[in-house]
Amino acid sequence: MARNLHLLLTVAWKNNSVMLIDQTKLPNKLVYVKCKDYKEVADAIKKLVVRGAPAIGVTAAFGLALAVQESKAKTLQELMTDLDTAFNTLRATRPTAVNLFWALERVMDKAKKARVLHEAKKVVLDEALKMSEEDIHANRQMGAIGAKLFRDGEVVLTHCNAGSLATVAYGTALGVIRAARESGKRLSVIATETRPVMQGSRLTAFELQHDGIDVSLIPDTAVGHMMAKGAISRVIVGADRVLRTGHVFNKIGTYQVAILANRHKVPFYVAAPLSTFDFESSPEDVVIEERSVDEVVKVGKKRIAPKRVRVFNPAFDMTPPELITGIITERGVLMPPFEKNLKALLG
Amino acid sequence: MARNLHLLLTVAWKNNSVMLIDQTKLPNKLVYVKCKDYKEVADAIKKLVVRGAPAIGVTAAFGLALAVQESKAKTLQELMTDLDTAFNTLRATRPTAVNLFWALERVMDKAKKARVLHEAKKVVLDEALKMSEEDIHANRQMGAIGAKLFRDGEVVLTHCNAGSLATVAYGTALGVIRAARESGKRLSVIATETRPVMQGSRLTAFELQHDGIDVSLIPDTAVGHMMAKGAISRVIVGADRVLRTGHVFNKIGTYQVAILANRHKVPFYVAAPLSTFDFESSPEDVVIEERSVDEVVKVGKKRIAPKRVRVFNPAFDMTPPELITGIITERGVLMPPFEKNLKALLG
Repeated sequence: MARNLHLLLTVAWKNNSVMLIDQTKLPNKLVYVKCKDYKEVADAIKKLVVRGAPAIGVTAAFGLALAVQESKAKTLQELMTDLDTAFNTLRATRPTAVNLFWALERVMDKAKKARVLHEAKKVVLDEALKMSEEDIHANRQMGAIGAKLFRDGEVVLTHCNAGSLATVAYGTALGVIRAARESGKRLSVIATETRPVMQGSRLTAFELQHDGIDVSLIPDTAVGHMMAKGAISRVIVGADRVLRTGHVFNKIGTYQVAILANRHKVPFYVAAPLSTFDFESSPEDVVIEERSVDEVVKVGKKRIAPKRVRVFNPAFDMTPPELITGIITERGVLMPPFEKNLKALLG
Repeated sequence: MARNLHLLLTVAWKNNSVMLIDQTKLPNKLVYVKCKDYKEVADAIKKLVVRGAPAIGVTAAFGLALAVQESKAKTLQELMTDLDTAFNTLRATRPTAVNLFWALERVMDKAKKARVLHEAKKVVLDEALKMSEEDIHANRQMGAIGAKLFRDGEVVLTHCNAGSLATVAYGTALGVIRAARESGKRLSVIATETRPVMQGSRLTAFELQHDGIDVSLIPDTAVGHMMAKGAISRVIVGADRVLRTGHVFNKIGTYQVAILANRHKVPFYVAAPLSTFDFESSPEDVVIEERSVDEVVKVGKKRIAPKRVRVFNPAFDMTPPELITGIITERGVLMPPFEKNLKALLG
């Protein structure tokens, strides 16, 4: 498995900066950007330089570590004020993925427990680094657990990118596929393009090709047709937020892939670490981000729709629990009824 | 309805040439191309300069008229040999839309009945011109019949382009929407982008905007989400081929839109003139065109997927009759059971 030596590292702390793969440049260029302050981090999250719920969470946590570095605070209280400012800026970048809020709050909670300035400064970076390691570990565990679900020779459809590039490394949904491959099973992946931002074409196809995993690309319009032909044996996707009821918020289009899977009796799995779970919210509480018109009417500089046309560009949708076969977490596969079984899983 | 004076004329015979709106240049430029021989016509069909089942049919018929002009035949037999050559070239351009075969065969049948050379030469162009007029007439009739199905204030989703630009003028599915608007009903249209060739963004949004009909664009991934929100009250699409059993072959993605409509209890209509019906074939006989990888991996010159990635790019899919509420034809609305009611409709 020599290829694993080259695992893409999407988010990293290096020389007191946050290093990110610039995902807006993929698949044409693999370049890293360096964020030296938390505002650059916030900007990178907004502009999708980094995306994917777990990757956003860890990146934001590192953003707080940058805020500590930038701070000229002489007292613990002054530091907490600076951290609060950074927290609010980072928190406002994107509204749907829960890992962002979870990560920021977890780091802030640690900082709040510090009794002296230098301790607070230290725990912020320590906690962010810990979360980065936990993310890879959770992905590996989901992989080991989820890989057992696959039979040899399966053709697996995935939507959007829940891979290395959506996490610190290894991936959630694609982590499961990687683990199945590492366990010796032959798998083929069908990636949907995932309009409008094309995470499937640009990122999933790129990273699976990078790792030597068999991948084919289809337009989002061809999912139903491929299922009707019997060309897909399983679906696996990631999640931006999972509610305790099993409602899954994920990239726009996930819901309809789930309906199509249901109609064609194709098992539909979600891979999501517990950091993606929101134990508080109800479906109607979750804000679905509406993104810019330009994502839909332009590709690069080329205009592909008439000027002044009205556009709806919701970035996420909600898949209800009745369409989900199982949710793969780092503690085991959650099967329906999700709410009841989640309690058991959490012990 | 002053705007109707400016109806787009997609295909026309003018000064012994075939004039086509170059649809590959839309929505950025509205330009016409002139085809002076049948090979240019065949090329225009292959390259999607002209597309849409009825428009392809009439264009191909005019292609035969060009073949007559080009022919140096001194005898009726020599002309028929030249026409056969042109017929075979035009017939091989695209495999799925049935209007192409129907139109070519109809013109050839007329020519074969001619007894002298000059009669054969005349009937080819006459028949092509007649079909062009019949197309507009059929669209107007479908419009009048279909418009009655709509209530005031509806939001209608359409996939691909079954508009003026898919016919000689006025359109099938969009013709019904135009007629409903002309009858005083307020309608809003939601157009799907329709990856990979973007007929929704480039053509449907363009022509509805051109006619002052309210239109919004959504990515193909947002259809399920919009339906779940209750934002769509009806679906209407065109067809490339309708079988006697009611199986509808249309642009890739139609099948999944039909499944989503079915799940959300949104009525799903097809508008198709009888020239789109194939009374002979069974579902398994129909060849689904697989188009080039470049349609998926490039937008203009910009690459949006990694090099050498495998791509599946089927241009059409099949929607089974159980997902179709009704099929609007120029003779009335065909309701299930389609096979039985089609016999009655044809009398």
